[in-house]
Amino acid sequence: MPPALHYTLEATDPNCAARAGTLKLPHGEVQTPIFMPVGTQGTVKTLTQEDLRTINAQIILGNAYHLYLRPGTEILEEAGGLHKFMNWDRPILTDSGGFQVFSLTGLNKVTPEGVQFQSHIDGSKHFFTPEKAIDIQMSIGSDIMMCFDECTSYPATHETAAKSMRMTHDWAAQCKAHWEAKEATERQALFGIVQGSTFEDLRQESAQGLVDLDFPGYAIGGVSVGESKEEMIQAVEWATPHLPVDKPRYLMGVGPPEDLLNAIERGVDMFDCVMPTRNARNGSLFTSEGRINIKNARFKNDFTPLDPACSCPVCTTYTRAYLSHLWRAGEILALRLNTLHNLFFMVSLSVQARTAILEGRFLEFKRAFLEQYST
Amino acid sequence: MPPALHYTLEATDPNCAARAGTLKLPHGEVQTPIFMPVGTQGTVKTLTQEDLRTINAQIILGNAYHLYLRPGTEILEEAGGLHKFMNWDRPILTDSGGFQVFSLTGLNKVTPEGVQFQSHIDGSKHFFTPEKAIDIQMSIGSDIMMCFDECTSYPATHETAAKSMRMTHDWAAQCKAHWEAKEATERQALFGIVQGSTFEDLRQESAQGLVDLDFPGYAIGGVSVGESKEEMIQAVEWATPHLPVDKPRYLMGVGPPEDLLNAIERGVDMFDCVMPTRNARNGSLFTSEGRINIKNARFKNDFTPLDPACSCPVCTTYTRAYLSHLWRAGEILALRLNTLHNLFFMVSLSVQARTAILEGRFLEFKRAFLEQYST
Repeated sequence: MPPALHYTLEATDPNCAARAGTLKLPHGEVQTPIFMPVGTQGTVKTLTQEDLRTINAQIILGNAYHLYLRPGTEILEEAGGLHKFMNWDRPILTDSGGFQVFSLTGLNKVTPEGVQFQSHIDGSKHFFTPEKAIDIQMSIGSDIMMCFDECTSYPATHETAAKSMRMTHDWAAQCKAHWEAKEATERQALFGIVQGSTFEDLRQESAQGLVDLDFPGYAIGGVSVGESKEEMIQAVEWATPHLPVDKPRYLMGVGPPEDLLNAIERGVDMFDCVMPTRNARNGSLFTSEGRINIKNARFKNDFTPLDPACSCPVCTTYTRAYLSHLWRAGEILALRLNTLHNLFFMVSLSVQARTAILEGRFLEFKRAFLEQYST
Repeated sequence: MPPALHYTLEATDPNCAARAGTLKLPHGEVQTPIFMPVGTQGTVKTLTQEDLRTINAQIILGNAYHLYLRPGTEILEEAGGLHKFMNWDRPILTDSGGFQVFSLTGLNKVTPEGVQFQSHIDGSKHFFTPEKAIDIQMSIGSDIMMCFDECTSYPATHETAAKSMRMTHDWAAQCKAHWEAKEATERQALFGIVQGSTFEDLRQESAQGLVDLDFPGYAIGGVSVGESKEEMIQAVEWATPHLPVDKPRYLMGVGPPEDLLNAIERGVDMFDCVMPTRNARNGSLFTSEGRINIKNARFKNDFTPLDPACSCPVCTTYTRAYLSHLWRAGEILALRLNTLHNLFFMVSLSVQARTAILEGRFLEFKRAFLEQYST
């Protein structure tokens, strides 16, 4: 049996490190670079699986921490995994819950064995080990699992960051051993996560250490917990030269359109971020001419599409005036239409970037996009 | 030019007063009996216009009171009417706002000239006359407008109900005169509303008085403000014998499946009710075997469809376990899927009733439906 993930590098832009590739996964192919909508609790908020097809989502995220607490692994197993539970037949990537047990829960206690934490839902006590994080993701049945990592808090001293990163490496080795022992390598891929905070030597050490462990893919973590845009890009630049060109690279929790393009330029293939969906539910919408907020009074009688350059069902069906009315009237449909548009925008951006890379004009595409986007 | 509404009575069930007919309206045909989803604020809550087509909605409701306050007639006129504003090209019926100015607003003051009330949104003062209610509905551009009426409070003495009903008749005459003077009769139909509370003589007097005024259709009002199911049916039985057979009859604000069928049996053609959508947002769902509440713990690991007998996209795509999870996780998608199903159920019920009438077996259909529904 072949491994669960097969990555083909199709093209590298002649003027930068931007890459176009294809991931073959148990539930289908993913063309990179790709933006992956976040479906934390087994649903991309407000959207059906049919909507996800409409916005051309190729792969979505699930979250081991959230799904472990609700509906729980027992129900997921009884359902036959998350794909069947939510009726989504394309690839799913799951975060291990590392970030959530540190950011969402009270009284968490970290030891080399794992993390003890309290549920943000009912305060119940739980203990996650690297092995348990893999077990949960096996119950979920995601195409790509993530190693359990400690998301180093920001800012961190060099000493704290080094200690945290080395524990993440120990955990990565344990995750890999457990994944192999459970004979899941043909059904689910596993990514290592580069940590090391804002320190060049640590980011390099982390990348090299994980590559020595030999994963099907590598993520760059800890870049969306408070770092500046410059520090995020720095982390990418420090890590990517040490990652193998024949494996996919995933920048976790990024990001706004400009960050996405900056990271693609530096050789990143995969992205996720709650910002497009969270912003949508706050009225903040992407357009080819920059972000707008639909709450603004000037949209009340603006009978043009949200983004005339966009071909999503919202832009081709409704006006800004109607979206403005839905928002003011407190209608749930506002959240749904806003979400659909913002995700369509982000997925399309990654698809357009891919086309530009294949045509060897990524930098030109990026410049033209940002010029119009920042008007 | 022909009038805006043309009703054809196609069949009357041989064993009861149930009728099947067709309404020709400026924005298309409606086959009766029909359940009309309520889109108070220019949106059927949580659903897109595409969803409304999916559930086979033939006509939806708008509300003059709500749309007058938000987005306001100026914006509706600028948009070219509600159909264009919300991008819905099938028929719309608008309630005049009579019910809302009494039920939603503070400090309302009724005089023979009209009703002074305060907006439930910002407390601003407004004055609705019969003419103004027509003007607003003309700005909206609905296929069917309703006369401005006083929704008699419940319970009422005979004296109060009689006085209220007679004022409603004076207003109906004014609405009709204004509608004709504005030359809207070819673009928009106008229905009179039978009142008279729980008194047989008043319901009869009201029906006869409105028929003398000669409207394109007649509604039976004031039956969903506190009356019992028996009183509702009584009001229908008192009014319908006095309504012309060649005009459509609309029972306002009704109702649950059993009430719908009881009223169809007595010759009613059109229905609306917020209950299916409101219940949906509270987890209460219709199935062919009766109502269930998805909050119930037994659905957590029930991997069967919500209603195996239903062909809506929710029942053919998702399980009760998934709907239960979405509800417990507080996901907006739960409200949306629940709404889609409940409305599909109600529209389908009216369509099935129509088929049964055309085949002369309405009573049999009703008996079989209720037998299964109340198991």
